[in-house]
Amino acid sequence: VTPRLFTPGPLTTDRRVREAMQRDWGSRDADFIALTAELRTRLLGVVPGAAERHVAVPIQGAGSYALEAAVATLVGPEHRLLVLVNGAYGRRMDEIARRMGRSVAAIDWREDEAVDPARVASALADDAAITHVAIVQCETTTGLLNPVDKVAHVVAEAGRVLIVDAMSGFGALPLGLGDRRIGAILASSNKCLEGPPGIAFALVERDLLAAAKGRSPSLALDLHDQARGFETNGQWRFTPPMQVVAGLVEALRLHEAEGGSEARLARYEGFYEVLRLGMQRLGYPLYLDPSLQAPIIATFRPRPGRPFDFARLHAHLAQDGLLIYPGKLTTEVTFRIGCIGALTDSDFDDLLESVASYDVRTHGVAEL
Amino acid sequence: VTPRLFTPGPLTTDRRVREAMQRDWGSRDADFIALTAELRTRLLGVVPGAAERHVAVPIQGAGSYALEAAVATLVGPEHRLLVLVNGAYGRRMDEIARRMGRSVAAIDWREDEAVDPARVASALADDAAITHVAIVQCETTTGLLNPVDKVAHVVAEAGRVLIVDAMSGFGALPLGLGDRRIGAILASSNKCLEGPPGIAFALVERDLLAAAKGRSPSLALDLHDQARGFETNGQWRFTPPMQVVAGLVEALRLHEAEGGSEARLARYEGFYEVLRLGMQRLGYPLYLDPSLQAPIIATFRPRPGRPFDFARLHAHLAQDGLLIYPGKLTTEVTFRIGCIGALTDSDFDDLLESVASYDVRTHGVAEL
Repeated sequence: VTPRLFTPGPLTTDRRVREAMQRDWGSRDADFIALTAELRTRLLGVVPGAAERHVAVPIQGAGSYALEAAVATLVGPEHRLLVLVNGAYGRRMDEIARRMGRSVAAIDWREDEAVDPARVASALADDAAITHVAIVQCETTTGLLNPVDKVAHVVAEAGRVLIVDAMSGFGALPLGLGDRRIGAILASSNKCLEGPPGIAFALVERDLLAAAKGRSPSLALDLHDQARGFETNGQWRFTPPMQVVAGLVEALRLHEAEGGSEARLARYEGFYEVLRLGMQRLGYPLYLDPSLQAPIIATFRPRPGRPFDFARLHAHLAQDGLLIYPGKLTTEVTFRIGCIGALTDSDFDDLLESVASYDVRTHGVAEL
Repeated sequence: VTPRLFTPGPLTTDRRVREAMQRDWGSRDADFIALTAELRTRLLGVVPGAAERHVAVPIQGAGSYALEAAVATLVGPEHRLLVLVNGAYGRRMDEIARRMGRSVAAIDWREDEAVDPARVASALADDAAITHVAIVQCETTTGLLNPVDKVAHVVAEAGRVLIVDAMSGFGALPLGLGDRRIGAILASSNKCLEGPPGIAFALVERDLLAAAKGRSPSLALDLHDQARGFETNGQWRFTPPMQVVAGLVEALRLHEAEGGSEARLARYEGFYEVLRLGMQRLGYPLYLDPSLQAPIIATFRPRPGRPFDFARLHAHLAQDGLLIYPGKLTTEVTFRIGCIGALTDSDFDDLLESVASYDVRTHGVAEL
């Protein structure tokens, strides 16, 4: 039985997405070239305004590969990257750039604090060497939503290039370009797009990409060469995971049919409300201030003054085919429940019922 | 309709492999941790003797990622890599190392010549700085089989580390370790293992891996850290393509059930014989000397003195759901037909019939 995934992704996929993975493709054949073209067009179509200045560059592999490919392709030895860190994914971008030998600065916030645009502005004013700024839209560490719009404004005013890790929320959280400048938007197939895992992608400004020829020290993770491959003959430079591509294209068709990112966000907000209220009734407090919490993944604290054992709660839910996620904080015991994927309100009712029955069995107290 | 793929891979998969891709998994859950452990054990099991000294390190992505990860992880700035080149994939290894800024030497052969172990021995004697040697077992450019055994002997005698790109033939062509030393063997899910594309892997000597901590300039393509991830908690460091993992594990079970690499090679040799004899009857000469041709992918020349248009032949076969591959030689018009995948002799009969009917329609001459 396919489990129901209450995680930040990979997540529960629609039956039609899985069925789209049931055939073989010639990786260099006309049918698959057409599918790849549809993929690239649909990825751009997810972000209003992206089609004008951006190029969609899918790459094989995990989401983090898109982060590394963006740094490798866009940030040269002559540049300096400022990374805004308030969780594990900001930290990862910092680590990627350092290992690559790039010049990096970082500003750290607590994991329950949003990035502060004013501090970014003053860091850019103080350090003229900074050429690029990287921010995580929604930190999967906690579910915290950073103010990308305001930071994009500050970075554009200062004439620097912004790189947005939009992994967690791409396809649901708003990220319109309009008159805002975002140099690169990075995400993956298996989050709010509800596709299978195996493909990451970058939407990169065409000018930045054109200027990046030969810059990446990596043959595999080079967004310029990858884009050139697509534009030369419509093919992937290296063997793509064809079944994953087919699943993702089907997922993007379903995304459009649902009404795009707005409709999807509305559905997730519905899940989040059911979850938040239900967990509140059961006595589990949200970790974040609600104003910072994105309806993507919610971090909860144990019930105050009650014993808590995540492994036992997880195992209890798993017996019902319901999978949740451990916390990722170093400082506090927490756990996370995802609000995304091809689920329905009744899946969340089932989850809350299972949490309640765990409480009963463990502590002899029903709280629903 | 799923086409039949006569390519060097990705190739036709078994129905059971595709069915194994029909469910969702929690990427950090116990079931998937068990599946990952089975994957790593089975990958090692494919190569006799590998379980003693080697570690299986799967990584997300295309086969070329394993080449780059091996160079990044095993070849440091203080090392020097000798690449043996007689086709596009040897050339790719050379390019990967140069872009990474590693010290590289290359020996080139013609694309219809095998690597000559004596030239390797003298290059190693002449250049004491060389620490690593890279060879392609079977060049997908042509289907040429290089003498890995003899080169492994020469490299071990000279006290250097051998890296084998075994992409094309892993799971069919013999690559026993025995008393031979091979530092790293690189391959992917979608060739002779008959799995879906999306996973590459390296079998690396444990000692080499242990000495490689912190060497890779890439966070994503670091075999040491990837292996440490598996060994710490059984999980992938970054989101794996779970459906592809499930498909590959099913493919490895089928590989074992068939009788392992020997039985699979015997099946492919059968296909190759049907193909070779049939194409000979139709007048298409093999490009390589038959003694150099592996039964993986065969390169053919057009019929002497007859007009030839690959695009038309390809389109004609594609109408019958039969996909073949263009040549990859820069010097000559050729085309390639793969002999691997979940096919049967009758698929090759169908292919030959379609080639013959193309001849009839195009040139008015039946030659079967």
